Amino acid sequence: MSELTLYLAPGTCAMAVRIALVEANAPHQVRLVDFAAGEQRSPEYLAINPKGRVPALVTERGVLTETPALLLYVAQRFPAAGLAPLDDPFLLARMQEVNSFLVSTVHVAHAHGRRGSRWADDDQAIAAMKAKMPQNMRDGFAEIENHYLAGPWVLGDNFSLADIYLFVVASWLESDGVDIEAFPRVAAHTRRMLTRPAVQQGLII
Amino acid sequence: MSELTLYLAPGTCAMAVRIALVEANAPHQVRLVDFAAGEQRSPEYLAINPKGRVPALVTERGVLTETPALLLYVAQRFPAAGLAPLDDPFLLARMQEVNSFLVSTVHVAHAHGRRGSRWADDDQAIAAMKAKMPQNMRDGFAEIENHYLAGPWVLGDNFSLADIYLFVVASWLESDGVDIEAFPRVAAHTRRMLTRPAVQQGLII
Repeated sequence: MSELTLYLAPGTCAMAVRIALVEANAPHQVRLVDFAAGEQRSPEYLAINPKGRVPALVTERGVLTETPALLLYVAQRFPAAGLAPLDDPFLLARMQEVNSFLVSTVHVAHAHGRRGSRWADDDQAIAAMKAKMPQNMRDGFAEIENHYLAGPWVLGDNFSLADIYLFVVASWLESDGVDIEAFPRVAAHTRRMLTRPAVQQGLII
Repeated sequence: MSELTLYLAPGTCAMAVRIALVEANAPHQVRLVDFAAGEQRSPEYLAINPKGRVPALVTERGVLTETPALLLYVAQRFPAAGLAPLDDPFLLARMQEVNSFLVSTVHVAHAHGRRGSRWADDDQAIAAMKAKMPQNMRDGFAEIENHYLAGPWVLGDNFSLADIYLFVVASWLESDGVDIEAFPRVAAHTRRMLTRPAVQQGLII
């Protein structure tokens, strides 16, 4: 099996793919994309991912992108790790539901705090988006707290990719000005995640 | 096998789940949610989906939401229809990559044209988002045209869920003020989709 190469930047959603690879004990190497230097917009990186974002995963059959897709890929390619209930359509759909909510609602809410220029050119509009961002993050995490985290894990007793992705997105709350302790189940989940050796190892890049 | 119940509204992304169910010949019933009357915010509907959105799919094990998750659920529960390359991790990841891009980038771009109040409270900011929306839709479809649609289908010769979802999102271009003919592969893909009996039948609700 040839080695996988993951392009990432610290603090981004790409960290979820890194942690999943470590949880799966998957042979891989990591390449840092220097956002401060604008490397994600360099011709070299755009040749890997034309969208100019992370994560990107180079496989022997081509490059894959988009966090929820990469997470499922890791689970399916390294099934012994048991990172997803691959043979249970309902439970897998619940896991995918949470991952889809994280990518399309919560991550999007977060992005309005620092990348509002994606959706408007006007400085006042960008400031208005930034002002509303913390409330949208609170709304998203209230949804998770009340409906998506029976505990100890997202799927109950079964640890899964949704836990990894939730952990990374929850790590943004502090810089978004939201107190994670307002969501006791989420806060306990983060602490639980930090006890896992693969999470500790995955965070070191 | 008990019947599934899909909650949807015409013209929304929930139509993709409806078409997938028809493609899969899945026993199901459809319930319309009257957006004009604000039914998605009624106590009855919030008891089904606390997020107040469509689609929601009622199964014998509980309610599932989020379009990409429901699409994969249909494919996995009705595997004879061959709606996803379930046993090929790379191809499945490519399909999920496209679906994830559609939900988290293209659908989000579209929503800024009519639901900007999700992300800012200021009227001028909402107008600024609306003004930028067509360009973001064009950027998203340029990505699809250039990188995600070798043809005839998204995955090449294999029809999949990504075709269904793309077809529904592309149907929004006209009302978004974007000429689909600027993307010849996408326009041809839409015409190809409209020749499928299940698509024709799925659109009638």
